[in-house]
Amino acid sequence: MINSMAANHAVWPKEDDAIFGLAAKAQEAIKKYGKENVIDSTLGALVDDNGDLVCFKTVYDELKSLPNAKIAAYALVAGQPEFLEAVQEACFREYRPDAYIKAVATPGGTGSARHAIYNYTNPGDTVLVSDWYWKPYATISEEYGRKVTFYKLFNDKNEFNIESFKENFETLLNKQKRLVAIINSPAHNPTGYSLSDEEWDQVIDIMKENAKNQENRIILFVDVAYIDFADNERRKFFKKFSNLPENILVIVGYSLSKGYTMYGMRQGAAIGISSNKEIAEEFYYSCAHSNRANWSNCNRGAMEVMARITKDPDKFKAYEEEKAKYRTMLKRRAEAFVKASEEVGLEILPYRDGFFISIPCSNAKEVSDKLMEENLFLIPLKLGLRFAVCAVPEDKCKIAPAMIKKAMDSIK
Amino acid sequence: MINSMAANHAVWPKEDDAIFGLAAKAQEAIKKYGKENVIDSTLGALVDDNGDLVCFKTVYDELKSLPNAKIAAYALVAGQPEFLEAVQEACFREYRPDAYIKAVATPGGTGSARHAIYNYTNPGDTVLVSDWYWKPYATISEEYGRKVTFYKLFNDKNEFNIESFKENFETLLNKQKRLVAIINSPAHNPTGYSLSDEEWDQVIDIMKENAKNQENRIILFVDVAYIDFADNERRKFFKKFSNLPENILVIVGYSLSKGYTMYGMRQGAAIGISSNKEIAEEFYYSCAHSNRANWSNCNRGAMEVMARITKDPDKFKAYEEEKAKYRTMLKRRAEAFVKASEEVGLEILPYRDGFFISIPCSNAKEVSDKLMEENLFLIPLKLGLRFAVCAVPEDKCKIAPAMIKKAMDSIK
Repeated sequence: MINSMAANHAVWPKEDDAIFGLAAKAQEAIKKYGKENVIDSTLGALVDDNGDLVCFKTVYDELKSLPNAKIAAYALVAGQPEFLEAVQEACFREYRPDAYIKAVATPGGTGSARHAIYNYTNPGDTVLVSDWYWKPYATISEEYGRKVTFYKLFNDKNEFNIESFKENFETLLNKQKRLVAIINSPAHNPTGYSLSDEEWDQVIDIMKENAKNQENRIILFVDVAYIDFADNERRKFFKKFSNLPENILVIVGYSLSKGYTMYGMRQGAAIGISSNKEIAEEFYYSCAHSNRANWSNCNRGAMEVMARITKDPDKFKAYEEEKAKYRTMLKRRAEAFVKASEEVGLEILPYRDGFFISIPCSNAKEVSDKLMEENLFLIPLKLGLRFAVCAVPEDKCKIAPAMIKKAMDSIK
Repeated sequence: MINSMAANHAVWPKEDDAIFGLAAKAQEAIKKYGKENVIDSTLGALVDDNGDLVCFKTVYDELKSLPNAKIAAYALVAGQPEFLEAVQEACFREYRPDAYIKAVATPGGTGSARHAIYNYTNPGDTVLVSDWYWKPYATISEEYGRKVTFYKLFNDKNEFNIESFKENFETLLNKQKRLVAIINSPAHNPTGYSLSDEEWDQVIDIMKENAKNQENRIILFVDVAYIDFADNERRKFFKKFSNLPENILVIVGYSLSKGYTMYGMRQGAAIGISSNKEIAEEFYYSCAHSNRANWSNCNRGAMEVMARITKDPDKFKAYEEEKAKYRTMLKRRAEAFVKASEEVGLEILPYRDGFFISIPCSNAKEVSDKLMEENLFLIPLKLGLRFAVCAVPEDKCKIAPAMIKKAMDSIK
């Protein structure tokens, strides 16, 4: 009787995804009690006030009007040239850094994080991530025998904790001489925080200081998965990636999941930014090799749709207007949640933009279980609770903080 | 001045994909000389006699009539349950093995090959592949620091070279105690060979004999990417995977690219077959972890379309009829090529099914260059030339062998 066939590094707990499990429970409750009596704040996808997934008409009309061959044909391994151009425009807008920039298509933002972590660390290396974090950074790292160390995202004043970032950054870099550090901003998942331009300056100063040692290899992975739901001003920091020292490579992970409501189509890009042309090309060919060796090429139809919308001024305008409408909806929900939290004295983390708001809490699992009894479904994390304002109508965003506060108080 | 930022294992030659490069040259020739004067036999996608990519109406009508949310929503990490059921039906038909079987969604067949190779070998291990082979097996292996050893696909009688398979299989297994061996059948890429049922029996006998040593871990990856363009009889071998010893795991790589003309949608599945329930589950969770860590989840719309077509008898019948029409077209082309080869004395490898026919040749690159001058574009491999009958109308399949023979003779 044998009990394992997989190689040791590929044996994982027989556990299903926790978030999808909670989402399924919320759906059961909706069936049983009616959607007006349930707050489903589990999934990170934009849902309208009727509880329906938002699917941009400008995106899906375009997809459905594509000639079949534009969906059916293989894409190029690194991505369609029109897409690779369009995705850079969409990502940077008027804040394109002055640098050599190469993009490679990936399945969602996940693929770009995978390329940054696998291609720019050595086995056994540690990746630097904030303590409030998107779990797949750790899943990718453990898949490939890499470890994760956390810097504190916030200091006592609820600002970006530059001291903690610096300390962990330098400790790891001195040890490894090579470091992939991850910053998820603007509209951080799960807190909704966005680094200010001054905070970005501090991050870049630390990188530059450490780049003086020519032996160091500094890779900053910037996850901008939610950028299209932040104000355009939030793109300003991209300009700061101009003319960096050659031993700093910035990789931007851009996703079409949220900004184009294309979650299920799996399209994104890894965008490498370097002041050295060779380094930018090495990035391109490294990612292209990884594409070929993992998923071969990406979703042709998704690339076509995105490129067509970006290149056609009328289509782009219509898309922007549609997105703006939902961005306003999202903002109002978040404002309602923040205001209600203040009113009931619920401590939340500083929200700036995006799909989520987080509540620090030392017993998140118990509070989440308690709230489930009252048909409020949210995600318990190690450090607290994640509330998905993207998925909850404004009126429910107003009442949820009181429910959460009450549940927390009842357990303390 | 630094010249590299990537980790050593992720630095690759700055080369673009050779096949796509040749395909681009063929397209240039078509523009210049007209499509009637060019034979473009480069890409492995089914093209009709007008030179247009075949896109099944039954597939794309279904896609375009899906509610947007069925395309836009995230899929489950391991794949939608209806899809995971449908894909097993589509793959095995009436020849489902008597075993524990678990499927996981992957982007195309490539993703399933990636899971088999990465999750079932150790770093430095060697994967066993036939000498006529699909190059990405080597790309995946080298991406992950694995090596590849080749068995001879054919013996002197142009049958499956069971002696070479056995010798290499046992040498590697004795050394590693763990082996991923790959067989691409039916409709092998690039030769069009399909193992006979008797040849499959021989392969399984070798595996069983070596499974007697309980220390051995034998993983057979069966790539059936082209199975939907072979006769249904070619599925019979699946039954032979019933009740195998527990230390043999069979992983079938199934792809929707060809059978559903969904190349650009990137959908397939890895299907694990074991007589041990635990091993099948280990496979499932290992692949699900890898999904989450590489591309997160797969194309929701592609899964929906496939499941809907498979579950609805009328839709399935229409799909089968549409596919049968093109399978007949493909057969006639291949027969024309084989017959013309005999007539002009061009030695080709034994073709049974599928998109490609191969011609052994020691100077493939020169012959290919020579043929390009005459506007015949095909793919030079290490051991010969690959002609894509899937992409060339019947009348051109009749004349191509004489052109190839002449070019080969002129260079000898």
